[in-house]
Amino acid sequence: MRTLVPFSAGSPKTRLAGLLSPAERIEFSRLLCSRVVETLVSAGIEPTILSTAPISGEWLSPAARVIADPQPLTAAVNTQLAAGSPTLILMADVPLATASDIQRLVDSSADVTIAPGLGGGTNALIVREPAFRVDYHGASYLDHCRIADRLDASISTVDSRRLATDIDEPSDLAELLIHGEGAACDWLVDAGFELDESGGRVGVRRSK
Amino acid sequence: MRTLVPFSAGSPKTRLAGLLSPAERIEFSRLLCSRVVETLVSAGIEPTILSTAPISGEWLSPAARVIADPQPLTAAVNTQLAAGSPTLILMADVPLATASDIQRLVDSSADVTIAPGLGGGTNALIVREPAFRVDYHGASYLDHCRIADRLDASISTVDSRRLATDIDEPSDLAELLIHGEGAACDWLVDAGFELDESGGRVGVRRSK
Repeated sequence: MRTLVPFSAGSPKTRLAGLLSPAERIEFSRLLCSRVVETLVSAGIEPTILSTAPISGEWLSPAARVIADPQPLTAAVNTQLAAGSPTLILMADVPLATASDIQRLVDSSADVTIAPGLGGGTNALIVREPAFRVDYHGASYLDHCRIADRLDASISTVDSRRLATDIDEPSDLAELLIHGEGAACDWLVDAGFELDESGGRVGVRRSK
Repeated sequence: MRTLVPFSAGSPKTRLAGLLSPAERIEFSRLLCSRVVETLVSAGIEPTILSTAPISGEWLSPAARVIADPQPLTAAVNTQLAAGSPTLILMADVPLATASDIQRLVDSSADVTIAPGLGGGTNALIVREPAFRVDYHGASYLDHCRIADRLDASISTVDSRRLATDIDEPSDLAELLIHGEGAACDWLVDAGFELDESGGRVGVRRSK
């Protein structure tokens, strides 16, 4: 299935700015993206990174095609959807996702399949309805359900904690330390992050 | 399967103290617990509420037995585990869980089955290994994996956003407004809560 991985190449992960320098955020976001690409490849998919700017370098998997489109996320994805379906759109910051999670998504035959993210986001989306267009602003899960309803398109929701966990906020780093593996997780440990169990829900602290 | 729903009867949901009065937190926690009990009953299970104090009243489903045990959570659950297994322990604040999610848990035949909560918690746990004892402090998911390893007990992890969403923090209220239904969700709306889409991840604000 045609698969897009939207990627912010310029100033990614701004909500981690209190914990990571701009250069670290770029490095970390590349590791997250690489993890998602690897997972897709292991699920038998050849993904296309839909990047806000041209990208290259050793970090980039040769298995991934790249389309550079400077438009905002919603417009960039909709330009691609206008070119045909079915299309899977998987966020570049869901490093806990496994190949079997991807298979669960792809197995759904609904017109629109959504794996919601925490806080009402849309972390994975399969569009089989040609007229469907995305709107990633705000509680996009609810918006995508409404858009599908207006088109009389069937909707399936995939219930997955791993797909729901996008790495945006400091608390998300704890999820990666607890449940993750691979280079992005190792990078966090090397950067001095460890679990902070002093509060109610486990968070992170940085020791260097 | 013998099923325990630990419930804090005294001063529940302290991390919501900035948004809800003490009386409101008690009322809301009862609605969450009732939702979990209803879901278990619809999955064919007769649950036992393991409460920190005796509870009664109209809010309490006649389908639920009650055991009052003033011990802290870990000790209270371990006292019950000493009385036999298999046992399902499901937190009282996972209102998004469905009967089919419960079925997924119960279908697992591992010695220890865990549905992790956000922040490393253990929202659902099935113990089939008689020697297993819980430790709910801190990143209990990791601790429970270690405890099972030491017993050479097999571990299965259930990947569910709905089971992972315990309602502890203000941001969790957004999950209930977005994905929930039933009395606890209606109560939040009646109390003036609505989605706040002004930030990065959707949260809540209270208008009255």
